Amino acid sequence: MSNASNRGVVYKEPGKVAVESIAFPELSLGKRKCDHGVILKVVTTNICGSDQHMVRGRTTAPSGLVLGHEITGQIIECGRDVEFLSVGDIVSVPFNIACGRCRNCKEGNTGICLNVNPARPGAAYGYVDMGGWVGGQAEYVMVPYADFNLLKFPDKDQALEKIKDLTMLSDILPTGFHGCVTAGVGPGSTVYIAGAGPVGLAAAASAHLLGAACVIVGDMNVDRLKQAESFGCETIDLTEDGDMADKLEAILGEREVDAFVDCVGFEAHACGCNHGKEAPATVLNSAMQHTRAGGQIGIPGLYVTEDPGAVDEAAKHGALSMRFGLGWAKSHSFHTGQCPVMKYHRPLMQAILFDKIKIADAVNVKMINLDEAPNGYADFDGGAAKKFVIDPHGTAA
Amino acid sequence: MSNASNRGVVYKEPGKVAVESIAFPELSLGKRKCDHGVILKVVTTNICGSDQHMVRGRTTAPSGLVLGHEITGQIIECGRDVEFLSVGDIVSVPFNIACGRCRNCKEGNTGICLNVNPARPGAAYGYVDMGGWVGGQAEYVMVPYADFNLLKFPDKDQALEKIKDLTMLSDILPTGFHGCVTAGVGPGSTVYIAGAGPVGLAAAASAHLLGAACVIVGDMNVDRLKQAESFGCETIDLTEDGDMADKLEAILGEREVDAFVDCVGFEAHACGCNHGKEAPATVLNSAMQHTRAGGQIGIPGLYVTEDPGAVDEAAKHGALSMRFGLGWAKSHSFHTGQCPVMKYHRPLMQAILFDKIKIADAVNVKMINLDEAPNGYADFDGGAAKKFVIDPHGTAA
Amino acid sequence: MSNASNRGVVYKEPGKVAVESIAFPELSLGKRKCDHGVILKVVTTNICGSDQHMVRGRTTAPSGLVLGHEITGQIIECGRDVEFLSVGDIVSVPFNIACGRCRNCKEGNTGICLNVNPARPGAAYGYVDMGGWVGGQAEYVMVPYADFNLLKFPDKDQALEKIKDLTMLSDILPTGFHGCVTAGVGPGSTVYIAGAGPVGLAAAASAHLLGAACVIVGDMNVDRLKQAESFGCETIDLTEDGDMADKLEAILGEREVDAFVDCVGFEAHACGCNHGKEAPATVLNSAMQHTRAGGQIGIPGLYVTEDPGAVDEAAKHGALSMRFGLGWAKSHSFHTGQCPVMKYHRPLMQAILFDKIKIADAVNVKMINLDEAPNGYADFDGGAAKKFVIDPHGTAA
Amino acid sequence: MSNASNRGVVYKEPGKVAVESIAFPELSLGKRKCDHGVILKVVTTNICGSDQHMVRGRTTAPSGLVLGHEITGQIIECGRDVEFLSVGDIVSVPFNIACGRCRNCKEGNTGICLNVNPARPGAAYGYVDMGGWVGGQAEYVMVPYADFNLLKFPDKDQALEKIKDLTMLSDILPTGFHGCVTAGVGPGSTVYIAGAGPVGLAAAASAHLLGAACVIVGDMNVDRLKQAESFGCETIDLTEDGDMADKLEAILGEREVDAFVDCVGFEAHACGCNHGKEAPATVLNSAMQHTRAGGQIGIPGLYVTEDPGAVDEAAKHGALSMRFGLGWAKSHSFHTGQCPVMKYHRPLMQAILFDKIKIADAVNVKMINLDEAPNGYADFDGGAAKKFVIDPHGTAA
Repeated sequence: MSNASNRGVVYKEPGKVAVESIAFPELSLGKRKCDHGVILKVVTTNICGSDQHMVRGRTTAPSGLVLGHEITGQIIECGRDVEFLSVGDIVSVPFNIACGRCRNCKEGNTGICLNVNPARPGAAYGYVDMGGWVGGQAEYVMVPYADFNLLKFPDKDQALEKIKDLTMLSDILPTGFHGCVTAGVGPGSTVYIAGAGPVGLAAAASAHLLGAACVIVGDMNVDRLKQAESFGCETIDLTEDGDMADKLEAILGEREVDAFVDCVGFEAHACGCNHGKEAPATVLNSAMQHTRAGGQIGIPGLYVTEDPGAVDEAAKHGALSMRFGLGWAKSHSFHTGQCPVMKYHRPLMQAILFDKIKIADAVNVKMINLDEAPNGYADFDGGAAKKFVIDPHGTAA
Repeated sequence: MSNASNRGVVYKEPGKVAVESIAFPELSLGKRKCDHGVILKVVTTNICGSDQHMVRGRTTAPSGLVLGHEITGQIIECGRDVEFLSVGDIVSVPFNIACGRCRNCKEGNTGICLNVNPARPGAAYGYVDMGGWVGGQAEYVMVPYADFNLLKFPDKDQALEKIKDLTMLSDILPTGFHGCVTAGVGPGSTVYIAGAGPVGLAAAASAHLLGAACVIVGDMNVDRLKQAESFGCETIDLTEDGDMADKLEAILGEREVDAFVDCVGFEAHACGCNHGKEAPATVLNSAMQHTRAGGQIGIPGLYVTEDPGAVDEAAKHGALSMRFGLGWAKSHSFHTGQCPVMKYHRPLMQAILFDKIKIADAVNVKMINLDEAPNGYADFDGGAAKKFVIDPHGTAA
Repeated sequence: MSNASNRGVVYKEPGKVAVESIAFPELSLGKRKCDHGVILKVVTTNICGSDQHMVRGRTTAPSGLVLGHEITGQIIECGRDVEFLSVGDIVSVPFNIACGRCRNCKEGNTGICLNVNPARPGAAYGYVDMGGWVGGQAEYVMVPYADFNLLKFPDKDQALEKIKDLTMLSDILPTGFHGCVTAGVGPGSTVYIAGAGPVGLAAAASAHLLGAACVIVGDMNVDRLKQAESFGCETIDLTEDGDMADKLEAILGEREVDAFVDCVGFEAHACGCNHGKEAPATVLNSAMQHTRAGGQIGIPGLYVTEDPGAVDEAAKHGALSMRFGLGWAKSHSFHTGQCPVMKYHRPLMQAILFDKIKIADAVNVKMINLDEAPNGYADFDGGAAKKFVIDPHGTAA
Repeated sequence: MSNASNRGVVYKEPGKVAVESIAFPELSLGKRKCDHGVILKVVTTNICGSDQHMVRGRTTAPSGLVLGHEITGQIIECGRDVEFLSVGDIVSVPFNIACGRCRNCKEGNTGICLNVNPARPGAAYGYVDMGGWVGGQAEYVMVPYADFNLLKFPDKDQALEKIKDLTMLSDILPTGFHGCVTAGVGPGSTVYIAGAGPVGLAAAASAHLLGAACVIVGDMNVDRLKQAESFGCETIDLTEDGDMADKLEAILGEREVDAFVDCVGFEAHACGCNHGKEAPATVLNSAMQHTRAGGQIGIPGLYVTEDPGAVDEAAKHGALSMRFGLGWAKSHSFHTGQCPVMKYHRPLMQAILFDKIKIADAVNVKMINLDEAPNGYADFDGGAAKKFVIDPHGTAA
């Protein structure tokens, strides 16, 4: 098998990705042996908003990096130490790589595993500074610590039938869900979701699954807001004039929400009079303003330690001007970090399999083949209200 | 106002209730002054399964007791110490009476308030051994500690429009919900609800609200099971032959559920070969058998300290033969007690007002007038798949 | 009683307080009747670090404001609506005033009660912008919603014997404890406490009570650090050179702590090369640097919405330059706000009464009489490693 | 290495154990390969009360079973799949064997791992019906899934210095701690511990670590009660006359405790007039009687599914006569099952290493050599207030 061919989506330079021949995966990462790993034939692999940070040249990602951390696949080879999985199993891959043996993994915090990235806690496939693991927007990919990491679907036929939904288990559905959970969303909550990109829409769908009474999504992109409306969300168009609290009151009868989820992150842009200008703390400050005293703020949107392309010197080093005193006065709590996907993927799979959530419809899945990936990146970056899912072998079609 | 007339449903003798003239409520209970109370004109008041224990003569309830602990009303008089409510407000009354000032109330355990029942923690309206508070299946009723206990609906017109749903906030919706919460039900859970009476159906609807993947309801009453099916539950007819684990597997692909909710309580009857015989521990033992290792068992169904009508000597003193060793081997936890309604009624109200739950449809509300109450008791005792809601003034009609 | 005399500590101008005759308390606040209140003869009342913000002229506190929110007293008069307390009871007063009837109070968040401050959620005695309630550094004070707010000591003689400890229940012991709880401190934790003032020392003592393995306290004041050492804490003198992570490693064998508690707040000063310069975000940024990935950051130290005396324009409006990206990369959570004292005061009273915590020794209580209060303020502001407790009637002596 | 000799404690027949030559461990269990395992040279291994159930002939344990599930050891060989441990490491072995890869392990419930016992969830070393894994009261033992299961001590010298304490991390300290945690013990709690055997004493020491205000231990064995007194517990001698509630009130000023921990289990004996007679539900019924409404009941004491030696027919099948109605009236919750040791062993190790808990003193460790094990079993069964720790190689001495 090791002579087999492989192709994947490769970052070339700011604004440019290409589909190229890449190495067929082995059960190793450099000198690190991965007998606990499996080789997957990729069934589906999604383009993610956080890939765009790299492709826009906003990071130090090197040219040649194979992209892709949202992976669903079928096992074609098991390392000798794999005990509970078999060739042929169809599995979901959490985007965060975890050893299953360190303190953080044992405590359920698989997003900050201590053993998979020499640079710092936490790793992912195909991402700068995340441990060097090869990305999965490809025909084949290697997944380490497979017994621990992988979620096996109970039935292959059913899995392929629902693959457009199940493919969201690798990242954005758990990520949106985690944002809601950490924001304290539960039955009867009123929730504001900042950002109607795929993670925002996944958070909105998650809020509904969690029993929220009213889910409000705010964005400046009308198409994405329509997408939110399609599954029962209220929306606020941030390009329109008017006081946000007034708009909340018109919807809720109250001027603040119970829970706030920031699905935008550090590349946030201001609305209102500074509309369109990058303003990295604007969503966080808005969260403090519009969340009720005692409320929680979930922050699945990515904030970074270094941001060479930022608008000001402070932001270049990840320092943001936050109205923290306002949050303090309202007894807010702030919950950050990568979603530990494993905490949620099994129950969310159940919700999909029993038709409790229609996540593919919510995020408007658009299936493409591998060669269409560069166009998918461009369309997504242009604001298309779609979630691009690559089907490299035509399996899902 | 104190000379005004009042009529209510009165327990007469085993099997018999009557609608009679009763005293108009005062802001007191015997010598205890209740300046913190309000007088309500009752909008709706529901017949509850736990009322049936009294009416069947299964308790020491005295003749003359005014029944009714599920109450929604409009304030017609406020005691001098009431500060945040006004005449005209439409409010939901939690069935558990609570002072809002003792340790248990401060910890959120309003079902076991220390200051409202000299005999033991916890009180309710119109119930034997629960503090002597007058029941609310009547035209008017007094509610003490009104600022603390009452949930005010934000809009009167909206409240009357949705009254068939909102009337369930006083007891069975929070009670069913509490059963699910204590059983650990969450997004993606598989749940078994024992009993398809109104509390069981409310638990099933709650499980859906909480995001359960699959909700299975078991009962021996086919009409009630149909009711469960009407809102997306799977059902198991306990009068049919066959192994329960096989039936679960046919539905779930697994032989055990994640969470089990006992909505039956101490008057449980055996199924299978002992079908129809009273068997007070049968549901609890079934719970241990059919819940996965690590699962939780929520027990909103009532178990009593003394049960003079029980089938055996032990059960007469509330002692049940439980296969506790089985539960221990599976690391089960067991969660009992009256639901602390206040923990849940506000968020559940929000879920109703924003159309996230259709509880009136789920429990099949049947509106009746006060004089129809005795028939309602009889029909309900006969197994009607209905929840009888008394509308004493024709307000809701 | 209403003609009786009263004396209290009054804020005059920046840097100056005076003991003056003040009005004897009534069961009202302006036009608001407080029949739910009691009048207390003050047994002890403590000077708090947050009083110093006002006295230093760092707020908009008006001249004439009667100071004092840390109050223990004996009831001399009960309002007509008080039901479960009696004249003669000795009680602890939570510094946050709460109605016991709003959503936030019912959820246990008494620090952000909705009914006691027209300006915003949350109130306190004797504090600017906190509802106008009269302070308790006085001979007598009125406490509203007494049945709800007050914690009655079970035995008067025992209470007076342990009064130096019990007087800390009104604020700093629960506040320090809350900081630890929200930082996730539990058995076996390693904890860093920023600041060795009374709240910091109370947090350190709380961390020990919670079972922390190792409690490290950092400050620039050697006397206060010695105080921390006196009850088993490790200390770090921030005026000394050297890398903080190295110092942590020398103590712990690890370079980061599990939990971090910020007991400094917005008047923080930089250490190292900018030693002594005000740097409002320095503790928060240090928290992100020195807390392990997955750790929690408890922030009982006060941050404000407006700070006219701040070092820069942004800080004047409560905006701080936080390295939030670093916290995000480490999946930190941040927990802010006033401590809801009622959540903790009863169990902490039990810990004191059964000699599980020696909080008076930990914070080095110094008893003074009312006339010594101005000197107490000055000494405390000068960095005395003492907690000043005013005993206005010589009761405790 | 596989030709090396080994000796272990073997169950022979009711009442009899012997030290015999046993097979040297291999990295397998029958046909199951365990390349994920390590071979340990046993440093210490403790005799446990649950071993006594087997030795008393109360189970179906077969003759020849090698006993011992409380193991601390030094690694002498690593399987090829072990990645994060090395030969020479000194490690604590959780008594429950867990794969680290199944749903239950991932959720932290390592006591009911799904992959290590074909008969049912959960496994242990040297125990009947627990998967057939060879016991560790021996010179050498094999531990599977070593990277996941083992807790490595940070420093070997320090580990040997504190070995009498650290050896309790394999079972009884976490088990007692788990009992307290599930009973809701926290700062300020009042706690009743039923049983002053080693687990009871470990629970009592854990309650102190958790900040309990008052810890009361009840037993019929005076020596064991003295042991409890030695570290600050109150005690109740159950052989003495008098009402339990009166005794609680004399100690606490209240007639019920906040939290109750059953450290006795199914071989409980009645006190009072039936003193000495086996009464399997007596502790559970006592728990419901003496725990406050709203309290929790932690049940680390073992209850079994089949008990051929039980006093009555029902108990032979694990069915106990519980006054469940009383628990229901008091809103109790009941928490059962094997302690998932891994949830607690790292923080408890920290508490030992930083001298926050003196567990060896609390349980009165008695070090013995391997040949003394049969006497140790006999003395322990006779009620010695000691915890016997076998040091098979003289390492700890």
